[in-house]
Amino acid sequence: MKTIKDSVHDHIEVDGVARALLDTPEVQRLRHISQLGTVSLVYPSANHTRFEHSLGVYHLACEALSQLGIEGRTAERIRAAAILHDIGHGPYSHNVEDVIERHTGKYHEDVEGIIDGGSVEAVLAEYDLDPDRVAGLIHGEGQYGGLVSGELDVDRMDYLVRDAHHTGVPYGTIDHGRLVRELRFVEDELVLGEGNVQTAESLLVARALMNPTVYSHHVARIGKSMLRRGAERLIAARTDPRDLRRMDDHDLLVALRTTERTSEIARRLAHRNLFKRAVWAEYRDVPGDLLDLDHEALVDYEETIADRAGIEPDGVVLDVPAYPKMTESSTRVVVGGEIRRLDEQSPLVRTLRQSQLNQWRLGVYAPAEATERVGHATEAVLGLDTDGTLISDARPGLYTTLDRFGVGAE
Amino acid sequence: MKTIKDSVHDHIEVDGVARALLDTPEVQRLRHISQLGTVSLVYPSANHTRFEHSLGVYHLACEALSQLGIEGRTAERIRAAAILHDIGHGPYSHNVEDVIERHTGKYHEDVEGIIDGGSVEAVLAEYDLDPDRVAGLIHGEGQYGGLVSGELDVDRMDYLVRDAHHTGVPYGTIDHGRLVRELRFVEDELVLGEGNVQTAESLLVARALMNPTVYSHHVARIGKSMLRRGAERLIAARTDPRDLRRMDDHDLLVALRTTERTSEIARRLAHRNLFKRAVWAEYRDVPGDLLDLDHEALVDYEETIADRAGIEPDGVVLDVPAYPKMTESSTRVVVGGEIRRLDEQSPLVRTLRQSQLNQWRLGVYAPAEATERVGHATEAVLGLDTDGTLISDARPGLYTTLDRFGVGAE
Amino acid sequence: MKTIKDSVHDHIEVDGVARALLDTPEVQRLRHISQLGTVSLVYPSANHTRFEHSLGVYHLACEALSQLGIEGRTAERIRAAAILHDIGHGPYSHNVEDVIERHTGKYHEDVEGIIDGGSVEAVLAEYDLDPDRVAGLIHGEGQYGGLVSGELDVDRMDYLVRDAHHTGVPYGTIDHGRLVRELRFVEDELVLGEGNVQTAESLLVARALMNPTVYSHHVARIGKSMLRRGAERLIAARTDPRDLRRMDDHDLLVALRTTERTSEIARRLAHRNLFKRAVWAEYRDVPGDLLDLDHEALVDYEETIADRAGIEPDGVVLDVPAYPKMTESSTRVVVGGEIRRLDEQSPLVRTLRQSQLNQWRLGVYAPAEATERVGHATEAVLGLDTDGTLISDARPGLYTTLDRFGVGAE
Amino acid sequence: MKTIKDSVHDHIEVDGVARALLDTPEVQRLRHISQLGTVSLVYPSANHTRFEHSLGVYHLACEALSQLGIEGRTAERIRAAAILHDIGHGPYSHNVEDVIERHTGKYHEDVEGIIDGGSVEAVLAEYDLDPDRVAGLIHGEGQYGGLVSGELDVDRMDYLVRDAHHTGVPYGTIDHGRLVRELRFVEDELVLGEGNVQTAESLLVARALMNPTVYSHHVARIGKSMLRRGAERLIAARTDPRDLRRMDDHDLLVALRTTERTSEIARRLAHRNLFKRAVWAEYRDVPGDLLDLDHEALVDYEETIADRAGIEPDGVVLDVPAYPKMTESSTRVVVGGEIRRLDEQSPLVRTLRQSQLNQWRLGVYAPAEATERVGHATEAVLGLDTDGTLISDARPGLYTTLDRFGVGAE
Repeated sequence: MKTIKDSVHDHIEVDGVARALLDTPEVQRLRHISQLGTVSLVYPSANHTRFEHSLGVYHLACEALSQLGIEGRTAERIRAAAILHDIGHGPYSHNVEDVIERHTGKYHEDVEGIIDGGSVEAVLAEYDLDPDRVAGLIHGEGQYGGLVSGELDVDRMDYLVRDAHHTGVPYGTIDHGRLVRELRFVEDELVLGEGNVQTAESLLVARALMNPTVYSHHVARIGKSMLRRGAERLIAARTDPRDLRRMDDHDLLVALRTTERTSEIARRLAHRNLFKRAVWAEYRDVPGDLLDLDHEALVDYEETIADRAGIEPDGVVLDVPAYPKMTESSTRVVVGGEIRRLDEQSPLVRTLRQSQLNQWRLGVYAPAEATERVGHATEAVLGLDTDGTLISDARPGLYTTLDRFGVGAE
Repeated sequence: MKTIKDSVHDHIEVDGVARALLDTPEVQRLRHISQLGTVSLVYPSANHTRFEHSLGVYHLACEALSQLGIEGRTAERIRAAAILHDIGHGPYSHNVEDVIERHTGKYHEDVEGIIDGGSVEAVLAEYDLDPDRVAGLIHGEGQYGGLVSGELDVDRMDYLVRDAHHTGVPYGTIDHGRLVRELRFVEDELVLGEGNVQTAESLLVARALMNPTVYSHHVARIGKSMLRRGAERLIAARTDPRDLRRMDDHDLLVALRTTERTSEIARRLAHRNLFKRAVWAEYRDVPGDLLDLDHEALVDYEETIADRAGIEPDGVVLDVPAYPKMTESSTRVVVGGEIRRLDEQSPLVRTLRQSQLNQWRLGVYAPAEATERVGHATEAVLGLDTDGTLISDARPGLYTTLDRFGVGAE
Repeated sequence: MKTIKDSVHDHIEVDGVARALLDTPEVQRLRHISQLGTVSLVYPSANHTRFEHSLGVYHLACEALSQLGIEGRTAERIRAAAILHDIGHGPYSHNVEDVIERHTGKYHEDVEGIIDGGSVEAVLAEYDLDPDRVAGLIHGEGQYGGLVSGELDVDRMDYLVRDAHHTGVPYGTIDHGRLVRELRFVEDELVLGEGNVQTAESLLVARALMNPTVYSHHVARIGKSMLRRGAERLIAARTDPRDLRRMDDHDLLVALRTTERTSEIARRLAHRNLFKRAVWAEYRDVPGDLLDLDHEALVDYEETIADRAGIEPDGVVLDVPAYPKMTESSTRVVVGGEIRRLDEQSPLVRTLRQSQLNQWRLGVYAPAEATERVGHATEAVLGLDTDGTLISDARPGLYTTLDRFGVGAE
Repeated sequence: MKTIKDSVHDHIEVDGVARALLDTPEVQRLRHISQLGTVSLVYPSANHTRFEHSLGVYHLACEALSQLGIEGRTAERIRAAAILHDIGHGPYSHNVEDVIERHTGKYHEDVEGIIDGGSVEAVLAEYDLDPDRVAGLIHGEGQYGGLVSGELDVDRMDYLVRDAHHTGVPYGTIDHGRLVRELRFVEDELVLGEGNVQTAESLLVARALMNPTVYSHHVARIGKSMLRRGAERLIAARTDPRDLRRMDDHDLLVALRTTERTSEIARRLAHRNLFKRAVWAEYRDVPGDLLDLDHEALVDYEETIADRAGIEPDGVVLDVPAYPKMTESSTRVVVGGEIRRLDEQSPLVRTLRQSQLNQWRLGVYAPAEATERVGHATEAVLGLDTDGTLISDARPGLYTTLDRFGVGAE
């Protein structure tokens, strides 16, 4: 048994397959993948990694297994999945995930090809575990998949508390001990036991408050969009996207720095000389067809706007987030002896989706000196209704919803 | 300058009128008034007092004054009000407040008569402050009243964080530093500055989650109702209600112990041998006329139920909470340069009232051995529709909404 | 299984004999015994009780038992002892313990007579546990006594962390998880495993820093000496000391308030109108014969000083602490495969005794207006060498070692 | 005014020269320099950076300035020095500092050449501050140098608390609020005010406990020695040491990975496939001449040992730490109105040096499979007295002082 000190869960005891997996290069690599990517440009203490998060998820999985009375091979498989659930992440975690997916077809959950080759497969074989079934758990499949990836998974419980600890924003400080203690399997479904409507609500509310304040803070989004652009250019210039997927943060940053086509983006990121918002538009003001743009159409718009603004194409980023999803609202809770969906039971949760939508923003970013021109060009090109709705870092007079979001953010 | 160490705000610096007020018997008395009363029967660490809370409110008031640029006599008056805002509390704070009010007409905010007599008045005079204006602030009057008692008051900011610290329930852990920093006076109205919809939401959500989990936990409610009954009997037997109002927790408990009429209640409270729920009914199942009972009608019902159940009148408690109010939903926030009400801006907040209503419960409590009989008697007497709605500690088979609420509570 | 939320250890699971013991009046009474007594006059947040501490000790005992692989009846007996270890405390815990001992011969560990009678004995019998053996564990007897009362006991681990949490003074924040994890039985002796010299040092250092800052803060000592005097007078006036021993804090305070002989002390304590230091002398300046005074001799001195100062005998308190003991310095640690005493291994620990001695102070206290006269009278009566050593709250000019100790204390 | 959220100090307000300095590339670079280097190989959560630490030091400096009543240009200069005090660090902070110093003659405090050139100089000029005087403060010069770099500097106060927060080891949790509040200038000397012997002791004790547990944990030392060797080889192979000094962590790691001569070390570090201890010897067992080896002599020994053990020269690392220094023991505290040195006043502090010496270890590290051979070779070559003193990861039978140190360390 190995005991590891963690700043969130204190002592974590690692044993069996999890201990052996910890020593594989695939898991050790997570030490060099930051958990929140460019969020550290807003919250300077948020330098935590996927490695410590994976340990935390493993720790909560062990507690949940003990609570649920799951033992033996099944438990060992779930513990392996907990340690491995993030090994498919590329550098900077979610920040460049869609670039990688566009070029390789792989999301971070697609761990096949990583899990069934090399050191990880060898360790799993030693413990007589089938890589495919472990990968299945990471995809959330089967009765136990929900523990690793689902509405009540231990992944979310760890990241909310950990991100709160490292950013200093308290909203994520859920009562994970209570959540784990109240997990039940009822009719093969993972639910929270009787009397836990508030417990379930607290998890969703924590996400709903952390999202605009931390995860989607506009400065983090701008940083992310610049990193994504860098990754695109790197692939165009010299890097196989499958190689990029297996880089760590160091590799990607240095590749950006040392490649001519991307060195300017790298320099801007290194010096925190970021683009600014030229447009920051609410959901209701964005024409519907902009919401489903494919990558090519989006690039076309960027180029058209840049052209009209009279600047280099690299100087315009159009950032259209997906429609907010709230999968957890279907969390199951036992109420009055029956399993009920949380959104049936909780009026609070029913409105969280609306709340998320209110916080949704389309962003157009550009170098500080060009935001005004880019703002005007965007109005013309995208046909945004700017009557009191256009928001921009450059033209304070036009701000109508200066939505800084940030909690004491830089 | 005096520096006091506090477990929530670390170092609190006390000076001027606040320092002089601290030494008065009226404020020192708050050391012996528990903040949460019978909540400590559920959360054993919740033994904090109105004294440390008052220091915390004073501390946040100082920060808010500095943030708002308020100085001089006005600031000193607000600081005095912060220190004094709870001196009108009777023993066990809110627990017996309605008993006291019924007999004396005084709520805890009614500090006139305490503030303008004795040591407090002398100190205020020394600092040239008018007791009536200080009392006005405690009532929330005037431009600055909202800082001490209002939707964005520092009272609430302190108690949420302090109650979370002492109970161990994290839901109250708001970002009070952010809240204080974002306070503004716009058009003489206290508001949160631009970009703080989430900040405001977080305050209301914290209350909405703390309420069922802590403040209205059914065991705390049962304890409170027993304490209230004890206070009623004490007044009937021997104690002037005006004297009862100025007791501290020690006085009240020992008076209950040493008075024949109340010694059984005192013994039950001391040994945590509490009444249990005979009925626990949702809002929708309670006939409308039960919601507005005056005290006499309520006592009549208790006696009728007891009679029908064949037990002593003291053995039935009918506990009908008020309709939930959500005054904070009219919190003002600046959005797009305009002052807006939070409930106009936040769909989340609009549903909190509904959420509170879902958690509302009418309770009927009785000694453990009598809950079944009292449950049946209550059905008959109150005409509750028990089709799948009656909930009781005694008859698990009838539980349909076993709403334990508690977070790992005793 | 019952789960209780604790502000220090989060969720505490209570089961078996411990759960049954929790409901006894003897254990419930601990809800009304403050952990640190008059320390709350210095640190206003320090209102925690022996009840929550006992739960914490039980929790750490469970962890230690699991770590040490102790099960069955022995484990159940140790768990019972953990819950019960403080039931012998009188009101205000250690504050009046020596008064009670002088009159009854009982220290708080002397739980015989409490444990083997009434509800506790009935519960122990139900679980087939011998009250004498449980009492033995509380006295630290036998192989397992050291877990409950010894140099490495879980009592100390809980109170250091809990007192730090509630006072806000961080010095007590030890790594209790590490300490419990490293407990071993080697040759039937409770020791810390290999590599834990620092772990053991940290426990002693935490005590050495908490002691002057919290436990022996001069204001807490003054409050305690006044409470002790009150208890003495109460016994003289009307209360059987065996009854006083079984009072809780409420009973004692109200008894002091309502007894003529003690109402002035009660009033002073309630209004924090405390005595002040007239003399505060270092160990080296105190004549040796003063260090071993019995109670009568001490009272004689107090009366002589009062007489010479021309004030009432009640107005002088002579407070001579015991010579500091450092029992933990004989903590056993495994070093290089051998069991060694910590003070053999750690030069740090060897000097802690000297350090404690440097902090030792003899105090003479009196009402604020009389400290100067009492100071002079004390010099004359006790023959203290005042050449640059006399310290007094009243005569700042004479202060040579104004040793306020306090960490931001009131 | 800019407000930045910090996980340790909550909200940090940045203004004036500090705000402008934050945006310089020299300070932004600190985002990519880890605070504790290879300590994260032991404590996986310890991924914090020099950037957040510099913000913390600035924050405490502001509090100290306000406490000491220092304003105007002097205060601005001190604030600049606080933000800039670590810009001279190379990659991985202290880990490769001695390599850089050997080749460039520069320690991290030698900020001349960084401070007086480029963006930093421009900002200082704008605020009319002399770079040389700022650099002087960073060297601890002048009356105010002690605030930035001295026995009572805010640097140490921040890093102890921050390292505790991020590692999870509580020993560093000092009461920084108290320390800053008690700073005084007496006769132009920075001291702690009356009554702060414990406050001062607590700072030194925190260091004394953090040192073996965190900073000098043997796994961190092994990682550091490997990184240092990599840096040496890199300089030999291709990198100008002045360039290496200005790299950040990413640059160094990728340079090690992509240089043939160092790729094996890089791979070992990336996969945490570290060397193990072949020898781990106490101070008293090490021949005196080994304590003052210059670099060449040390390399000679390494080669001789490797040769005798029959392995590659790269496979042996001889790690001889400096004699422990305890500069803080001369901290000044006011005692009885006089300024006294802490080590005169505190027996505790006098023994800390001895304690540090007890924890001192000479290490010889080698690949796991070679530790036994290297252990024997070392005995022969260095003439260590191995009678019961030789310690090695490879030969458990010979362990006499298995000093794992770690607090639940990996």
